[in-house]
Amino acid sequence: MTFLPEMADKQKVVLAFSGGLDTSFCVKYLTEDKGMEVHSVLVDTGGFSADELAAIEARAYSLGVASHAVVSKTDDYYQDCLKFLVFGNVLKNNTYPLSVSAERIFQAIAVGEYARQIGASAIAHGSTGAGNDQVRFDMAFRIIVPEAEIITPIRDLRLSREAEIEYLKSKGVDQEWHKAAYSINKGLWGTSVGGKETLTSNQYLPESAWPTQVTKSGDETVTLTFTHGELTGINDETFKNPVGAIQRLTELAGPYGIGRDIHVGDTIIGIKGRVGFEAPAPLIIIKAHHALEKHVLTKNQLTWKEQLGNYYGTMLHEGQFMDPVMRNIETFLADTQGHVTGKVFVQLAPYRFTVLGIESPYDLMSAKFGSYGEMNNAWTGDDVRGFSKVASNQVMIYERVKNNE
Amino acid sequence: MTFLPEMADKQKVVLAFSGGLDTSFCVKYLTEDKGMEVHSVLVDTGGFSADELAAIEARAYSLGVASHAVVSKTDDYYQDCLKFLVFGNVLKNNTYPLSVSAERIFQAIAVGEYARQIGASAIAHGSTGAGNDQVRFDMAFRIIVPEAEIITPIRDLRLSREAEIEYLKSKGVDQEWHKAAYSINKGLWGTSVGGKETLTSNQYLPESAWPTQVTKSGDETVTLTFTHGELTGINDETFKNPVGAIQRLTELAGPYGIGRDIHVGDTIIGIKGRVGFEAPAPLIIIKAHHALEKHVLTKNQLTWKEQLGNYYGTMLHEGQFMDPVMRNIETFLADTQGHVTGKVFVQLAPYRFTVLGIESPYDLMSAKFGSYGEMNNAWTGDDVRGFSKVASNQVMIYERVKNNE
Amino acid sequence: MTFLPEMADKQKVVLAFSGGLDTSFCVKYLTEDKGMEVHSVLVDTGGFSADELAAIEARAYSLGVASHAVVSKTDDYYQDCLKFLVFGNVLKNNTYPLSVSAERIFQAIAVGEYARQIGASAIAHGSTGAGNDQVRFDMAFRIIVPEAEIITPIRDLRLSREAEIEYLKSKGVDQEWHKAAYSINKGLWGTSVGGKETLTSNQYLPESAWPTQVTKSGDETVTLTFTHGELTGINDETFKNPVGAIQRLTELAGPYGIGRDIHVGDTIIGIKGRVGFEAPAPLIIIKAHHALEKHVLTKNQLTWKEQLGNYYGTMLHEGQFMDPVMRNIETFLADTQGHVTGKVFVQLAPYRFTVLGIESPYDLMSAKFGSYGEMNNAWTGDDVRGFSKVASNQVMIYERVKNNE
Amino acid sequence: MTFLPEMADKQKVVLAFSGGLDTSFCVKYLTEDKGMEVHSVLVDTGGFSADELAAIEARAYSLGVASHAVVSKTDDYYQDCLKFLVFGNVLKNNTYPLSVSAERIFQAIAVGEYARQIGASAIAHGSTGAGNDQVRFDMAFRIIVPEAEIITPIRDLRLSREAEIEYLKSKGVDQEWHKAAYSINKGLWGTSVGGKETLTSNQYLPESAWPTQVTKSGDETVTLTFTHGELTGINDETFKNPVGAIQRLTELAGPYGIGRDIHVGDTIIGIKGRVGFEAPAPLIIIKAHHALEKHVLTKNQLTWKEQLGNYYGTMLHEGQFMDPVMRNIETFLADTQGHVTGKVFVQLAPYRFTVLGIESPYDLMSAKFGSYGEMNNAWTGDDVRGFSKVASNQVMIYERVKNNE
Repeated sequence: MTFLPEMADKQKVVLAFSGGLDTSFCVKYLTEDKGMEVHSVLVDTGGFSADELAAIEARAYSLGVASHAVVSKTDDYYQDCLKFLVFGNVLKNNTYPLSVSAERIFQAIAVGEYARQIGASAIAHGSTGAGNDQVRFDMAFRIIVPEAEIITPIRDLRLSREAEIEYLKSKGVDQEWHKAAYSINKGLWGTSVGGKETLTSNQYLPESAWPTQVTKSGDETVTLTFTHGELTGINDETFKNPVGAIQRLTELAGPYGIGRDIHVGDTIIGIKGRVGFEAPAPLIIIKAHHALEKHVLTKNQLTWKEQLGNYYGTMLHEGQFMDPVMRNIETFLADTQGHVTGKVFVQLAPYRFTVLGIESPYDLMSAKFGSYGEMNNAWTGDDVRGFSKVASNQVMIYERVKNNE
Repeated sequence: MTFLPEMADKQKVVLAFSGGLDTSFCVKYLTEDKGMEVHSVLVDTGGFSADELAAIEARAYSLGVASHAVVSKTDDYYQDCLKFLVFGNVLKNNTYPLSVSAERIFQAIAVGEYARQIGASAIAHGSTGAGNDQVRFDMAFRIIVPEAEIITPIRDLRLSREAEIEYLKSKGVDQEWHKAAYSINKGLWGTSVGGKETLTSNQYLPESAWPTQVTKSGDETVTLTFTHGELTGINDETFKNPVGAIQRLTELAGPYGIGRDIHVGDTIIGIKGRVGFEAPAPLIIIKAHHALEKHVLTKNQLTWKEQLGNYYGTMLHEGQFMDPVMRNIETFLADTQGHVTGKVFVQLAPYRFTVLGIESPYDLMSAKFGSYGEMNNAWTGDDVRGFSKVASNQVMIYERVKNNE
Repeated sequence: MTFLPEMADKQKVVLAFSGGLDTSFCVKYLTEDKGMEVHSVLVDTGGFSADELAAIEARAYSLGVASHAVVSKTDDYYQDCLKFLVFGNVLKNNTYPLSVSAERIFQAIAVGEYARQIGASAIAHGSTGAGNDQVRFDMAFRIIVPEAEIITPIRDLRLSREAEIEYLKSKGVDQEWHKAAYSINKGLWGTSVGGKETLTSNQYLPESAWPTQVTKSGDETVTLTFTHGELTGINDETFKNPVGAIQRLTELAGPYGIGRDIHVGDTIIGIKGRVGFEAPAPLIIIKAHHALEKHVLTKNQLTWKEQLGNYYGTMLHEGQFMDPVMRNIETFLADTQGHVTGKVFVQLAPYRFTVLGIESPYDLMSAKFGSYGEMNNAWTGDDVRGFSKVASNQVMIYERVKNNE
Repeated sequence: MTFLPEMADKQKVVLAFSGGLDTSFCVKYLTEDKGMEVHSVLVDTGGFSADELAAIEARAYSLGVASHAVVSKTDDYYQDCLKFLVFGNVLKNNTYPLSVSAERIFQAIAVGEYARQIGASAIAHGSTGAGNDQVRFDMAFRIIVPEAEIITPIRDLRLSREAEIEYLKSKGVDQEWHKAAYSINKGLWGTSVGGKETLTSNQYLPESAWPTQVTKSGDETVTLTFTHGELTGINDETFKNPVGAIQRLTELAGPYGIGRDIHVGDTIIGIKGRVGFEAPAPLIIIKAHHALEKHVLTKNQLTWKEQLGNYYGTMLHEGQFMDPVMRNIETFLADTQGHVTGKVFVQLAPYRFTVLGIESPYDLMSAKFGSYGEMNNAWTGDDVRGFSKVASNQVMIYERVKNNE
């Protein structure tokens, strides 16, 4: 990464760059129309191959950036965010693992930090004015580099796709800009799919729209090993880094078409939005992790984890990841995972999976302490009779008072 | 129902009677060993045919009850309880529709009211000392007829099955008591299945254990119509009484093996318990209802409904149904259902179902007000920029203060 | 109220008018600089005398409004809002009765409805850009008359006080604009006080700053009568309208200096704000009401009322009063008040009050059912022993499992 | 502490001993009627002088215990419990600092651990059957030494005070047993006061009933210094151990009659209970701490701290202190205290105190970032206008849909 000396007196802008049409437009627009020194940056959270990264870098330089940087954040993304989504069993609206929300926030923060580090006085993103991402970028930049100007050409100019292509052509960038039928966002924690059906309320995505096609049939059972809440093993394979385990489980379960659904949710900007996603690993991991927790945590721990986990997910979704309460909740969630160690048996089959059972040294469902529906010696009928009497005491009194008895 | 005059000076006991081994034992034991006048009662919440009811009545009289009554509560059960489980999208631990919990509480309350009505000074149930039902019966009886003695022969005598059979033989009741491999509890809101696998943590129920076997293949799409949150139509059929719709959906979806799972949960008595269930109608109704709500309710309504719905389910499960806070929550839940009217399209397939989409006049996801990810005219980029700035203001300040900037 | 025919082709703007410097500036600015037809409106929520209303109307016309209207909303304000603040025992941050927040939202809604009713295409308020009120007005207007332009001259022009006076002088309005040392906002639900001390974190308001000076000494006991949660009597006086009771209690308790405090809170725009207030009636009513509830509601009702009441207050404070979840919560709160009937005895003394006790036919603390710390016959030691054993069962098991015993 | 050899074959029982009538009865009863080897233990949580401890020990031996132990737990009591009550601003029902609840649980746990340590096979407490303490002792013992028999002579024998005295006389213990008009429980975190008024709903305690009489007049201002949420300084005095600061503040504020009130609450056994208390230090510390937090924490931190703090207090009150969720919550609370450092200025006066203001390096209410109600440069009117538009978007759409516009 080199900074050309002759650019020293231009305004330095950092651009979150993906290589797509919108951010390519931004490079040209910022460089040529605005006369700025553009430093493009790509935050890698596990969604790119080395070849893809190289191609994007080449495109950035060919468009005229002063520098291009790749910030590798995959491990941080897991350690600082995904881990807690697992600990909290976070599924937005009981459905969506926040595949895109989590990734985008992480990228926004990394871009903001990069801008601060290289001393940029402006920072640009290619979001439109219609979605959640614009808010996530705006907020992260505002918090991390409040003095930097935030520039959003696509949002502000409200250009159509065709107008952007025309502009680029006029600047000598005359390439094919493939317009896919479905807008796909692939990441470590799942892939989102948007298309004409997701703009309606009543239509489902067709089979062909899903990025991972179903190629497996029959069923198979996998054993997931959790250590203090983290996925550290799949069948006989041990993973030092849970990122590898997530990737491996995606490969195993994806070809069954597991983890597909459509999420209907509230965007940060108040409208309802609908998005398809396939997220086999997140869905299986969260359901398996939750099953294990149901065996090893107390009722009260489960109750509070659910509340705090839901809130954590909503805040993350809404770009409020940097609020210090999020750190406090992470501390809470991590503290609950001491006993969340054991194996979970999961059956995979086309379009579905079943959690079969668990094994854990911390299992509270131990026959030693009495079995549900079986006779036991840990308490007597009289104990329960006394319990019931005391536990119903207040409502018994309430009824007497109500009926003036 | 007649009361024999010569029994007038015996203690009058009401017995919750199912016709099974345990409650049959109770009749003999209370009548002959305790010298009580036994009034058996069966509360019908939709789980019995006329023939079954007649057979149970015959058995009751043959065992020597002074009277036998059937209290029909199916409609009340729906109106006073199941309706709110739908409004609240209640799935205990995100899994279990409380099939047995809800039914048992309703039966316990009806038995208690019956005892009060006929002036019984004692009230008996056949629960063992190992499960939740004993607490539900104890609590309801204590609240409704606090002055009545509660008698629980099976719990107190801790008799084995064999000892009960032996006792009955000695009293001249020498019939076959079939011991099924799986203990089944069938009701309007689902069927529970317990067996040797559910006593372990790691084994799943075998295919043969499920009461409804899979006989349908392929897939079909059904249209569910909701009116103010209640299921009032399936495909072209309209139901004045949602009870009929629940039964119809059970018939349609059951043969796909939909709605099966194992619930791991906290019993009222503190141990963990595991129980299989098949509940096709509850699962489909709740997921469809929730999908509709995601389109027609505001974010804040969804958030609070989830919290109050979860709490409502837990209280119901734990026998606290009569706490007046439950009436307050029902009022809240009912008040949220004004716009929960529309159609939900659901695809059924073996072992799974998919909510395809919804249609509602109250759908907040209307293109008129801007579409997610699409350009729109309801707000500008500057509006969102301002929103982001204000929404991030506090954390921006927090960061400056933290870093002493 | 007459509409002059010659103004028919001017843009019709409704202005929330108080008669102060800022809104006087607005009239002139909108009329003369913008060429608009200004319809001023004042929403009376109980803070104005007839003379004051007449004086404000006269000023409006003298400044050149096309019409001036007074919308009387005092009873609605109580029925649709204050009542629920009492039911919910709402004190923001356990301190502040939302004196200004509630009133401002109510006024904003009434102004919005008035604009809609007279068909105005624009709507103006005199808020600055530094507080909560601007958001409350903006949001209410946007929700009720989304098509109307919102005009905020003071916020947008960022004029100093002196510049406003200069401008008005230049338009021939040459009056004294009194600048008080403390900014006072007086309303039915309390009076706010802002001044140089409240702009600091460490200084308290001086005695002289409080609008109601302390003129009573010694102490007196008042009896408050609540009927289904509403204050309907003070000592021997009965009030058909609780608004009268609130006013009467303010007269009784105000001269003791009761109900003064400084609230530190989060503004809607993310900064912290500090404001003094004196609110004798709200403080006494809420504490007395809560004391009564502690006697007549169940533990679970109290717990949920607290949560929902706090949330209700926060939403109200943040201008989210029109979210339908607020109506749902009001339904819940009202449903809890059936038994909140009785007398509360309160001792007033300089700067403080003490709730002495209560009397209610619904009091659950009845010696009939056992007294705290006294022997009783409603349960036995064995009952409690059984209760304790069952209630500790899960943690007992947890400890064994943890210690591998 | 010596164990007499001839007692080796007697059953070893640990008795929680206070030296009062009830536990003195227990010693004689267990020793002589039950033939047990009694090991009395007193847990000191800061409520006893050396002389008092010596006198109690002497009485224990004179009554015939095999050994007597004093377990000093004052620092643990603060570190493991009181600290979190401050962090969580815990006032039960917004009133009561849990003075007795906290202490009793701590003592129960220490007694249970002592019994386990010396290998006792039984464990006794002198609670009656009418209050909360019996449950706290039962539960702690059951969790820590589940195999030990729990013996509760006073609860089980239901003896009157007179009968106990008579029994002791018959065993040669013929001393004066002073029956105070008010039952007082003095501890580090406040003193409870029960008497004939607290058994009613409508009477307040008379001035003479309060243990600390009012001897100070006028007013004084104290400066409290908090370090990461803990009270470490009062005026110019620095405390390494916050226990000392609590004691010092009690001395300073007690003679003003500050911190007196009557708590009405739900007992664990379902009845309502009423108890007077004087707790000057806890009340002042919690209100001062909360005031500081309102300045240095974000809105979301305050909201969740309130919820978790309230729950923590309720669980503590109900004897559920050992549930692991309590450790998770403590971790959360501690994690929020990083910035809760600064000074709080409090004015003391007879029967009341006022938090005047705070100073903190972490104060978020800094004029640098804009002042409430004042012009500023951190955001523009347009920013807020955009915020309001986006923040009202959903309800605006909801209203259109509702009105079919």
